[in-house]
Amino acid sequence: MFITNPEIENYIRKLTVVEDEVLLEMEKLGHKLNFPIVDRLVGKFLYLITKIKSPKLVVELGSGFGYSGYWFAKALSNGKVILSDYKEENINKAKQFFKMGNLINKAEFYVGDALKIAKQYKDIDILFIDHEKSRYLEAIQTLEDNLADNALVIADNVLWDGKVLDENPDKQTRRIKEFTEYMFNNKNFETCIVPIRDGVLLARKV
Amino acid sequence: MFITNPEIENYIRKLTVVEDEVLLEMEKLGHKLNFPIVDRLVGKFLYLITKIKSPKLVVELGSGFGYSGYWFAKALSNGKVILSDYKEENINKAKQFFKMGNLINKAEFYVGDALKIAKQYKDIDILFIDHEKSRYLEAIQTLEDNLADNALVIADNVLWDGKVLDENPDKQTRRIKEFTEYMFNNKNFETCIVPIRDGVLLARKV
Repeated sequence: MFITNPEIENYIRKLTVVEDEVLLEMEKLGHKLNFPIVDRLVGKFLYLITKIKSPKLVVELGSGFGYSGYWFAKALSNGKVILSDYKEENINKAKQFFKMGNLINKAEFYVGDALKIAKQYKDIDILFIDHEKSRYLEAIQTLEDNLADNALVIADNVLWDGKVLDENPDKQTRRIKEFTEYMFNNKNFETCIVPIRDGVLLARKV
Repeated sequence: MFITNPEIENYIRKLTVVEDEVLLEMEKLGHKLNFPIVDRLVGKFLYLITKIKSPKLVVELGSGFGYSGYWFAKALSNGKVILSDYKEENINKAKQFFKMGNLINKAEFYVGDALKIAKQYKDIDILFIDHEKSRYLEAIQTLEDNLADNALVIADNVLWDGKVLDENPDKQTRRIKEFTEYMFNNKNFETCIVPIRDGVLLARKV
């Protein structure tokens, strides 16, 4: 079961050269720890969307050791990105990487519950949802009022390894589908899914 | 040979409800004539990118009967989109559809050589390349100086039904690959490929 033809994905990946040594280091670490990072195909896409949007405030839910956050930070001109993870170990690693890449002044780092941390922020320009898959719907419902006008909501893993096609999907998959349907059916959002890697939902607050 | 798993594509397509009756009419016509339109998955993506970018000037190369142009026009607040096609019949149809959708005042229509028409415009914010596949590289080289700062270049069909993987690609495929490599290797652009449908290249002028 695959989403994009693996040979096609390989073709795109070869074209997508990453020169930033910190990102390369993070990719190595992700590989070594078998830690699910968004990978460079999604990373470059997030980077470009951020460049086009030019946000002041990006809030991530579920930052791991900071791979996606690093792509956001690289794309920011005068904004900042809020990283959070429930594991202190991950956030410490993220801080190290951001220091290495001279991006530390574009970011804030928190350990704890992603939603509680995010809820402190108003006028979020980009909300990136990538924490526990069963909490995506709760996340958008909790944070909808914290979004700025025309804010973007970007959610990773919405195709969930193709399990969204299962006739009897497991609980996590059902939750992801509920979130996805909520976004597509909600007149406050204009939504599409970009089938990069594990599926990226991109929505704009109307 | 497929790019995105067809069942996944179908899952996304079902979610992507289109209510605009003119777009539905255009999709029917595309189906009837077997005319290659970008389809609603790419259309919705173009729409969202345009909403995020908020361009003043969108220039299309190869508009057919106006399906992609219509999505661009729908997303414009105070800009305009330039449509061109070498067939008068196509442009006449496009005009009719834009009238039906009350979008005629957001568009200009031309019959003739897409590059010559586009070359008349300065400060292009979004250049959409979708004309003869063998002329993509010529198009960007001809129009690079006509792009505004931070302009977006979006090109359809860059995965060309997967033929980019062929060991001995035909001439058209080679031309598409030359264009793609040019974009990825050119330091004036930041580029990614989004594997929606037949592959959409998205680049930002640095």
